[in-house]
Amino acid sequence: MAHTIANKGKLILRVKKIRGQLNSIEKALENETDCFKILQQISASRGAIQSLMSEVLDGHIKEHLGNHVSEEQREQEIENLSSLLKSYLK
Amino acid sequence: MAHTIANKGKLILRVKKIRGQLNSIEKALENETDCFKILQQISASRGAIQSLMSEVLDGHIKEHLGNHVSEEQREQEIENLSSLLKSYLK
Amino acid sequence: MAHTIANKGKLILRVKKIRGQLNSIEKALENETDCFKILQQISASRGAIQSLMSEVLDGHIKEHLGNHVSEEQREQEIENLSSLLKSYLK
Amino acid sequence: MAHTIANKGKLILRVKKIRGQLNSIEKALENETDCFKILQQISASRGAIQSLMSEVLDGHIKEHLGNHVSEEQREQEIENLSSLLKSYLK
Repeated sequence: MAHTIANKGKLILRVKKIRGQLNSIEKALENETDCFKILQQISASRGAIQSLMSEVLDGHIKEHLGNHVSEEQREQEIENLSSLLKSYLK
Repeated sequence: MAHTIANKGKLILRVKKIRGQLNSIEKALENETDCFKILQQISASRGAIQSLMSEVLDGHIKEHLGNHVSEEQREQEIENLSSLLKSYLK
Repeated sequence: MAHTIANKGKLILRVKKIRGQLNSIEKALENETDCFKILQQISASRGAIQSLMSEVLDGHIKEHLGNHVSEEQREQEIENLSSLLKSYLK
Repeated sequence: MAHTIANKGKLILRVKKIRGQLNSIEKALENETDCFKILQQISASRGAIQSLMSEVLDGHIKEHLGNHVSEEQREQEIENLSSLLKSYLK
């Protein structure tokens, strides 16, 4: 878990920023903004979520599969990562 | 724009739901939750945004490129859609 | 169809290149190459296919939804594009 | 490497099948087939490559990060996987 704790402040800021993008999308829908602009905003927020996923996943792999992990835990972590990636990449 | 107006209520509900997912992710980071659970939540919120994108895009194509659109507007819309997809699909 | 005809030579070259990448992947599997290298090759060939998709789709939108298309054909094309994107983006 | 060896025959069959899809795309371009059909074929071959990637990656994680791997090798494998996923998920 250490990586999401060590980078806690930075990661929370990123989540807040994505939530801000969703606020803008909601406001744009409320105000009946030109829908091409709405599509651009949705596209940008998807990019931001994918980039967050990539960063947390990277920290996860480095922290949870490394040499300091117990054998039992590693087996569980590998099972988890495998099922997560299957779902994320399909 | 009609499709984002006609489905306004439904689309706003979806945006609110995704924002709720981001609230949970933020809380999970704050509470130093097991980071595998955080990854699952990020993965789910990315799925929800992609599904929103797909729905708004579908309405967009049907409304903005159809036969009721003026020739001048259609040219502009095609240009816009082309640049949006290039960025979204890369 | 004009865009896939006008760019026929160029597009066929790209398809041949991707097929060459698949030949290398097959050979690497045959030779029991280090599987990380195989993963890198699969990743590269997926990038090349996505880029081909993006280019053909772009030409398609410009050619098949434009002002020169009959109203009846446009309706059909919009239906087709809508179903293709739903499947591709899910 | 064991997983790409154990499943060698099955994986090679999948690669051959994707190559067959590319042959059809090339032929369709040569014959100036309706380009919507070409788009459907490109979309299908991208799905097949993604599914191959997902399978080889899954075997890779299970084989190369497990408890039987030396500490030195594991560090290298984690570095490799991290860089591969950053590139694949961006």
